[in-house]
Amino acid sequence: MEIEEIHRLAEELLEQRKYSLLRQMLNNLNSADIALLFDEMDKKEIPLLYRLLPKEEAADSFSYMSREMQKTLINTLTDRELRAVMDDIFLDDTVDMIEEMPANVVARILRNTDEETRKIINQVLNYPKDSAGSLMTIEYVNIKKEMTVGAAINRIRHTAVNKETVYTCYVTEHRKLIGMVSVKDLLMAEDAMQIEDIMETNVISVDTHEDKEEVAKVFNKYDFLAIPVVDREERLVGIVTFDDAMDVMQEENTEDITKMAAMTPTEDNYFNTSAFSHAKSRIAWLLFLMLSATVSGSIITHYQESFKLYPLLVSFIPMLTGTGGNCGSQSSTLMIRGLALDEIKFKDIFKVMFKEFRIALLVSTVLAVVNGLRIYIQYGDLQMAFVIALALIAIVILSKFIGCSLPLIAEHIHLDPALMAAPLISTIVDICSILIYFKIATIVLHIAV
Amino acid sequence: MEIEEIHRLAEELLEQRKYSLLRQMLNNLNSADIALLFDEMDKKEIPLLYRLLPKEEAADSFSYMSREMQKTLINTLTDRELRAVMDDIFLDDTVDMIEEMPANVVARILRNTDEETRKIINQVLNYPKDSAGSLMTIEYVNIKKEMTVGAAINRIRHTAVNKETVYTCYVTEHRKLIGMVSVKDLLMAEDAMQIEDIMETNVISVDTHEDKEEVAKVFNKYDFLAIPVVDREERLVGIVTFDDAMDVMQEENTEDITKMAAMTPTEDNYFNTSAFSHAKSRIAWLLFLMLSATVSGSIITHYQESFKLYPLLVSFIPMLTGTGGNCGSQSSTLMIRGLALDEIKFKDIFKVMFKEFRIALLVSTVLAVVNGLRIYIQYGDLQMAFVIALALIAIVILSKFIGCSLPLIAEHIHLDPALMAAPLISTIVDICSILIYFKIATIVLHIAV
Repeated sequence: MEIEEIHRLAEELLEQRKYSLLRQMLNNLNSADIALLFDEMDKKEIPLLYRLLPKEEAADSFSYMSREMQKTLINTLTDRELRAVMDDIFLDDTVDMIEEMPANVVARILRNTDEETRKIINQVLNYPKDSAGSLMTIEYVNIKKEMTVGAAINRIRHTAVNKETVYTCYVTEHRKLIGMVSVKDLLMAEDAMQIEDIMETNVISVDTHEDKEEVAKVFNKYDFLAIPVVDREERLVGIVTFDDAMDVMQEENTEDITKMAAMTPTEDNYFNTSAFSHAKSRIAWLLFLMLSATVSGSIITHYQESFKLYPLLVSFIPMLTGTGGNCGSQSSTLMIRGLALDEIKFKDIFKVMFKEFRIALLVSTVLAVVNGLRIYIQYGDLQMAFVIALALIAIVILSKFIGCSLPLIAEHIHLDPALMAAPLISTIVDICSILIYFKIATIVLHIAV
Repeated sequence: MEIEEIHRLAEELLEQRKYSLLRQMLNNLNSADIALLFDEMDKKEIPLLYRLLPKEEAADSFSYMSREMQKTLINTLTDRELRAVMDDIFLDDTVDMIEEMPANVVARILRNTDEETRKIINQVLNYPKDSAGSLMTIEYVNIKKEMTVGAAINRIRHTAVNKETVYTCYVTEHRKLIGMVSVKDLLMAEDAMQIEDIMETNVISVDTHEDKEEVAKVFNKYDFLAIPVVDREERLVGIVTFDDAMDVMQEENTEDITKMAAMTPTEDNYFNTSAFSHAKSRIAWLLFLMLSATVSGSIITHYQESFKLYPLLVSFIPMLTGTGGNCGSQSSTLMIRGLALDEIKFKDIFKVMFKEFRIALLVSTVLAVVNGLRIYIQYGDLQMAFVIALALIAIVILSKFIGCSLPLIAEHIHLDPALMAAPLISTIVDICSILIYFKIATIVLHIAV
């Protein structure tokens, strides 16, 4: 059933006060879909609908809801109801919520959380934003190397209700992480065997201060269900689960794409961001690029005698700067993506430049021949055709060089390579293209400036 | 240890023929890291190094290696060695390999696969490329609703060695999927309970012909470890696991980003693609966009009397087209990303246009004031300042409209919205900008054309 259909049905049942039927329908829905349904409903129906949810579903659906909806609910639920939710949802979801909610909502959340949890929340909140520490959950299965397989399975059976991921058990000694065992390995082994004999001792872990983007890359590389997070003394403090890593991956991709279009990334999605915030995230780069473009303006002014003589020269400016910009952004995009996926590194810069040079030769030859012919046929002006063909070759080669080297250099000096994308590259390439073009034109056409 | 360090050590041990030490070191590495090490090694050392790998590690590392490396290995291994690998790696990896390898390598792979497996491979190969069927593995844990929890756990213990994901068990009746149980649920339940009583009957599944991008979206929404794949008769035929979904997500992101920079996506990474293939994937759009730019050229030619009178007019062309292009690509990028993440839909088009209009008003006012003032101060030409300010406002508004509507319309008529990105938008916006600019200029400056 599509969400629109579910929504229509829910509205109908609400209107006809068929609450038990509605409850039955909700019971058959997945938590993520219930969250979607809440988004579609009228605000004043939300509290009633929430109270119709089966108890065990309420907390689960709550963690799938948008921040906006969670805020609405926190403000309408009684303390008792809120406490039930807070007891049930996973700790890392609580922490995420606290980090993003306004102060009065946070106060209500904390008032309805037990003291033990509050202490842990405070500890997690102290990790830097976007670090593995802030992303992790402190709920994991912890076993000792002296345990038997049977005892370990028993331990999972008795503690797992509160653990987000039970499928990997971590072996610690004096709180230090010394090994891990998957539930699959446990199930394959004999009950009497010792954990020590079957555990994997070569455990990949991340530091609490590791950037979450790096954490996501580890997941991508190793296909883990969860990664243990250790502090500087190698003590196990939590785990990051694959679903959070997936979210980070998508967020990072969105952030890169946004930056590559000369915008400051916003936290929320398109519709939840106000027109004013959108304008704010776009104006800085636009202003900067607009003012940088005055450089190409001055170059044109410098050559104005040439186009007073040959007005046709002006007609080719958009085509040349456009082609240069496109060539440059093709190269820069591949670099930015390659850097993000760790497929390209700064040390490859000369290898990359040589490759881009060969590509530029191939591409520019085709472009120069096609456009040179077109101009010769259209205007019968061989000299002009020659100027454009020559300019195209020079511009394509230069813009490929600029496009491939700037992102790599940015990465090397710890700037975000995503900033070296189409908009900035185009502006720089514009300036170079116009300079090259007029230089070639004045020489070939014998114009004195 | 960094991969460079591991590589240096491995080379040293090989040179000194300390093979048992080297084998020990390999034993301590993770399969993904072994695969990386192979990439770093000299080609002629590969067969020896592979033979030093512990048996159980060999197949695992093999599936993490690049296609290039797998090809090298398949060509150097004996039939017996190759059969050992093929017996051990997961079926979906074999299928992926067969889909991407040249015919002679495929022949060798198939010759060394047992008949049963070959039959299944052929079946999977018949699913369309990029469908859930081609992505899935047919190795999963299958139980019956009449089983007890104890019996189900036993079944996992006896069959799980060959299953990529054992953590979700699927309940079937006459091959139809009727429920699922997670290993966590099994562990939480009493041994004597019946599967029927604890299974989740509301199972989200995908069709064999579902596009893999949609499959990845389901993972992103529900945080599943695996999703069952069913045929048109609702019969369970396989599962897709989260690690494959993660790979699809990254691939789709790369594909979108590549298309957004006016390139045809390539299957392989930057360095493994030849300069010629790179040129081929870039030239089509460049040619098309270059020839489209002749339209803006003709418009300029049409207005050449105006810039013979006011040569300064030409100087502002790159700034205006650049700003228009940037504004348009900001909007189109947000639309393309929003569509990919299902946050924006075609039916939102008027809501989006109204929002973009308000953003355009805010942004263009700032740009117009700043640039108007700059021109008035720099040239003392109030009329020119007015022309530019007015042109900026009109261009920004129009380019935001074009930028936000084209991707939505593309999606609606089943074209890839990623094609409506910066390069194409800039070319269209260039044409409009130049037209608007000269129109305003000739009116305000009273130039007859």
